[in-house]
Amino acid sequence: MAGNDRSPVTVIGLGLMGQALAAAFLRAGHPTTVWNRTPEKAADLVREGAVLAPTAAEAVTAGELVVVCLTTYDAMHEVLDPLDGALSGRVLANLTSGSSEQARETETWASERGAAYLDGAIMAVPAMIGGDEAVLFYSGSASAFEKHEATLRLLGGRTTYVGEDPGLAVLYDVALLGVMWGTLNSFVHGAALLKSAGIDATAFLPWATSWLDAVKLFATDYAGQIDAGDAEYPANDAKLSTHFASIEHLLHESETQGVSTELPAFVHALVKRALDKGHGDNSYAAMIELFQDPKAS
Amino acid sequence: MAGNDRSPVTVIGLGLMGQALAAAFLRAGHPTTVWNRTPEKAADLVREGAVLAPTAAEAVTAGELVVVCLTTYDAMHEVLDPLDGALSGRVLANLTSGSSEQARETETWASERGAAYLDGAIMAVPAMIGGDEAVLFYSGSASAFEKHEATLRLLGGRTTYVGEDPGLAVLYDVALLGVMWGTLNSFVHGAALLKSAGIDATAFLPWATSWLDAVKLFATDYAGQIDAGDAEYPANDAKLSTHFASIEHLLHESETQGVSTELPAFVHALVKRALDKGHGDNSYAAMIELFQDPKAS
Ligand SMILES: NC(=O)c1ccc[n+]([C@@H]2O[C@H](COP(=O)([O-])OP(=O)(O)OC[C@H]3O[C@@H](n4cnc5c(N)ncnc54)[C@H](OP(=O)(O)O)[C@@H]3O)[C@@H](O)[C@H]2O)c1
Ligand SMILES: NC(=O)c1ccc[n+]([C@@H]2O[C@H](COP(=O)([O-])OP(=O)(O)OC[C@H]3O[C@@H](n4cnc5c(N)ncnc54)[C@H](OP(=O)(O)O)[C@@H]3O)[C@@H](O)[C@H]2O)c1
Repeated sequence: MAGNDRSPVTVIGLGLMGQALAAAFLRAGHPTTVWNRTPEKAADLVREGAVLAPTAAEAVTAGELVVVCLTTYDAMHEVLDPLDGALSGRVLANLTSGSSEQARETETWASERGAAYLDGAIMAVPAMIGGDEAVLFYSGSASAFEKHEATLRLLGGRTTYVGEDPGLAVLYDVALLGVMWGTLNSFVHGAALLKSAGIDATAFLPWATSWLDAVKLFATDYAGQIDAGDAEYPANDAKLSTHFASIEHLLHESETQGVSTELPAFVHALVKRALDKGHGDNSYAAMIELFQDPKAS
Repeated sequence: MAGNDRSPVTVIGLGLMGQALAAAFLRAGHPTTVWNRTPEKAADLVREGAVLAPTAAEAVTAGELVVVCLTTYDAMHEVLDPLDGALSGRVLANLTSGSSEQARETETWASERGAAYLDGAIMAVPAMIGGDEAVLFYSGSASAFEKHEATLRLLGGRTTYVGEDPGLAVLYDVALLGVMWGTLNSFVHGAALLKSAGIDATAFLPWATSWLDAVKLFATDYAGQIDAGDAEYPANDAKLSTHFASIEHLLHESETQGVSTELPAFVHALVKRALDKGHGDNSYAAMIELFQDPKAS
């Protein structure tokens, strides 16, 4: 590695994702040290120039940046707890999936061992790692992210630092996945409704996708109203009471066409509660008050 | 109107929407005859060149194409039932909001009176009428649509005929509105989750909107799988069991961050049922089987 001016990187965990991470660092010319409980999984990476460390302790001392990608936080502690002193002065970038609480606890744990902590969430499959479209969120130490940003960005073009609270990366991740399920459920329900009248899902698709662009514009207005925090929610496009009348139509059509009414009935009950709370003349943004209420479940 | 080679059009109903419809025809130079229960609402249109008919019967005989836009189907029958003979040979384009059953019934009613029937659904507010982006769906008589397509397209650039079943326009309309509510609910829930950690909705917004473009790609794959109808649903991106694990994370984060768990709990129960039915290794497209089941509610 003589003459290579790129910083050395360590990757702990060579599952499907860990191998993709290490491969991306190698492709960019970073001296890459790897460790895995089952060392056989390092074979391809070693052929591509990775150094296989015999122990996790030796792996983490190869450089400042230590990327960890294991099944769970428990697995991470099994591997890293015994190392203690070796972590001092390192930057731990943990891409293991977990909860925002685990991320916050792990920051404390890391700082007790003298390590800066970044918690990451990967919104990509292994094949996307290293590509322009791969989204990786990081939260935790701002200075650690800044220092290693260029290196971390090798894992995905849409690598983004979202804030000091180490739990934030996970929250962005699950909130976005939630948008996916919400959109997909209503798309598939709509496809079921149209199928009941002989229309293919592929005929519905282009309408749904272009309509989503209009929905983005509505959401843009609502986001501003939510942040204004003044509980005004002006109905610039449509009132909640108007939405409600249309939701009744969707519910009715689902019934008469013989498809499941479960999803429209859920939306119906939700918006009904907003009307009961006096939001009938507000925009859809007023729904934030229901979603912020933990008792609403 | 001498020398005007555009076909005459009648507009029955001059509420907010009816006025916008008549104005669009006038702007394009069509001889436009209007009628409204309360004739005062015709004043602006008459100034712009519309002919105000003293009775609905005289209005409908002004030309072949009769556009109707009233509050309800009941209102439409109140106005049109007495006309009987006057409807013979006309094309009735009914833009009054109603159900797919009402649309189907009205086609029968119209054909008994010798009129061709088009049922329309307007996915636009009055200010958008006549614009490139206004979506209007029509279903019913294909030949009537073909004959008057150019005229009807004056009401919106995205005017589309969706099929012979007169109920289809309504079904497209409510299915798309359903996609809007599904997307908005999950967006607002995600905004509530991030707000609980101090992140603004406007910071979440650009991530949500660009992520929706990825969701469109997933939906494209799923639409093809739904239409294939072979119950295979190959998990080209992610298995339902993998989705389920992430849904549990969203549910957990909603709980610990103190926001409503109602929406993630709904999605959780829904996907759980799909897993129980043996769809764990399928893609999200397999959810169509739940949504097609009327007993699932
Ligand atoms: N794959 C994806 O598409 C994807 C996407 C986003 C996020 N993620 C996240 O990335 C992480 C890794 O996923 P993956 O797909 O790489 O999983 P994987 O292929 O199952 O690999 C799991 C890794 O964890 C190691 N491990 C598990 N328990 C251990 C223990 N007790 N001690 C030491 N090592 C242990 C495994 O070592 P052995 O090889 O010795 O078993 C292996 O390196 C997960 O948290 C996952 O949620 C994955
Ligand atoms: N506005 C929108 O953004 C929008 C969007 C999509 C679809 N639509 C649909 O378009 C239709 C009309 O909406 P709009 O906004 O124009 O409503 P509107 O402003 O309330 O106008 C209602 C119209 O219906 C007439 N009417 C009601 N009952 C009647 C009766 N018994 N006999 C005769 N005429 C009667 C009214 O006549 P008077 O003037 O004499 O009261 C008026 O012309 C509705 O089905 C609505 O759902 C509207």
